[in-house]
Amino acid sequence: MEKGILYGVGVGPGDPELVTRKAERILREADVIAVPDKGAGEKTALRIVEDLAAGKELLSCPTPMIRDRERLDRCYEEIAGRICALLEAGQIVAFITLGDPTVYSTYIYVHKKVLARGYDAQIIPGVPSFCAAAARLGVSLCEGAERLLIVPASHQAADCLDVKANKVFMKAGRAIGELRDLLAERGLLDRASLVANCGMEGEAVYPRFADVEDGTGYFSVVLVKEPEEPAPGREKQEG
Amino acid sequence: MEKGILYGVGVGPGDPELVTRKAERILREADVIAVPDKGAGEKTALRIVEDLAAGKELLSCPTPMIRDRERLDRCYEEIAGRICALLEAGQIVAFITLGDPTVYSTYIYVHKKVLARGYDAQIIPGVPSFCAAAARLGVSLCEGAERLLIVPASHQAADCLDVKANKVFMKAGRAIGELRDLLAERGLLDRASLVANCGMEGEAVYPRFADVEDGTGYFSVVLVKEPEEPAPGREKQEG
Repeated sequence: MEKGILYGVGVGPGDPELVTRKAERILREADVIAVPDKGAGEKTALRIVEDLAAGKELLSCPTPMIRDRERLDRCYEEIAGRICALLEAGQIVAFITLGDPTVYSTYIYVHKKVLARGYDAQIIPGVPSFCAAAARLGVSLCEGAERLLIVPASHQAADCLDVKANKVFMKAGRAIGELRDLLAERGLLDRASLVANCGMEGEAVYPRFADVEDGTGYFSVVLVKEPEEPAPGREKQEG
Repeated sequence: MEKGILYGVGVGPGDPELVTRKAERILREADVIAVPDKGAGEKTALRIVEDLAAGKELLSCPTPMIRDRERLDRCYEEIAGRICALLEAGQIVAFITLGDPTVYSTYIYVHKKVLARGYDAQIIPGVPSFCAAAARLGVSLCEGAERLLIVPASHQAADCLDVKANKVFMKAGRAIGELRDLLAERGLLDRASLVANCGMEGEAVYPRFADVEDGTGYFSVVLVKEPEEPAPGREKQEG
């Protein structure tokens, strides 16, 4: 029997309309939809594609929010094992993931393990949350010569503030207070905005980060724009 | 008469299947599709949504690839003027843009000018090219505590190599030779990959950047992964 294939499918940041046509097609074609479960039945990615997943066989994939690498690795190994059994039986498996599968996703660990066991796995990109947050705020992430630095907020945000770049802090929920203090110290509070639960239930948009209250959701994206520099004169000579 | 609205629509990196359902709906609803034209009839974004644009009124928007800010500003002002005349007449205008409208797009300048003239403008996010390139390579952009730095390759790439982060160099086409020398100097050549024209005609995937020939396309994305550090011991204590 021909072996199946695993697709890591980015379903975008929350709004079901931000699913791509490709994700839609693959979810329709899939025999089994693998759904990450961070605990307490929290299956955000599944809610986004409820219409496409209706009636499909679901495979719940427990990926607890812990930092114990060995324990996590055992979780991913177990998920990979269950997926490979399905692939061996010729099934098409779509592992759904919030945003894009290459940006801080759990999927990528499963992807590597499935490839290592000799099966085929492909990544289907999606709209990352920071693009949706910038769109919701009506601002750019980066223009012209600007750089963009993407940082997981829970991992020591302090030392990145000296990097000359616009910044995105992902999953800022628990780190909001710390981040506010850091930005205030650097005089960057007026240049920071926040979007919580972008495109999802409980969406909150704060063009001014100073207005944010503690306890906003885990799915918070903070955008900090570098102060503008005067245009270098030499650029006038080109073109 | 009710005024129209401008949508800045990200159509994704090249593959027509990576267009979102929302972009699809808005392009169907639009009266006029505004198409950026970088010169020589090069309308990459239009090719991606040819099926949706068929039969629609098109507004060609010349945005020459120059760095003269004043001349460019006059181009954007003229485009904004023409779009606002359509909005005044109650039309819905969709300005299509490659990738995502908040990441190095021409659209954002038009967006600001249209808002400044008192009209409504909204951004519809899309899949950025770097997510599609990473997906095509089958690798992550960032995992766990890793950071990601996004850099326009044509703007002095040298000084960003000391930033501790995975890196994406956008529109690397003309800067390939320079980038190769820089990466070789830092011993990073083995950690770099390139995708040219991702999802478009002439796609080329180089998991090893060292294999890239000069003269690859303008739409090249280079991904450089930071060397891995040993896991800090304290992470074992959580969870």
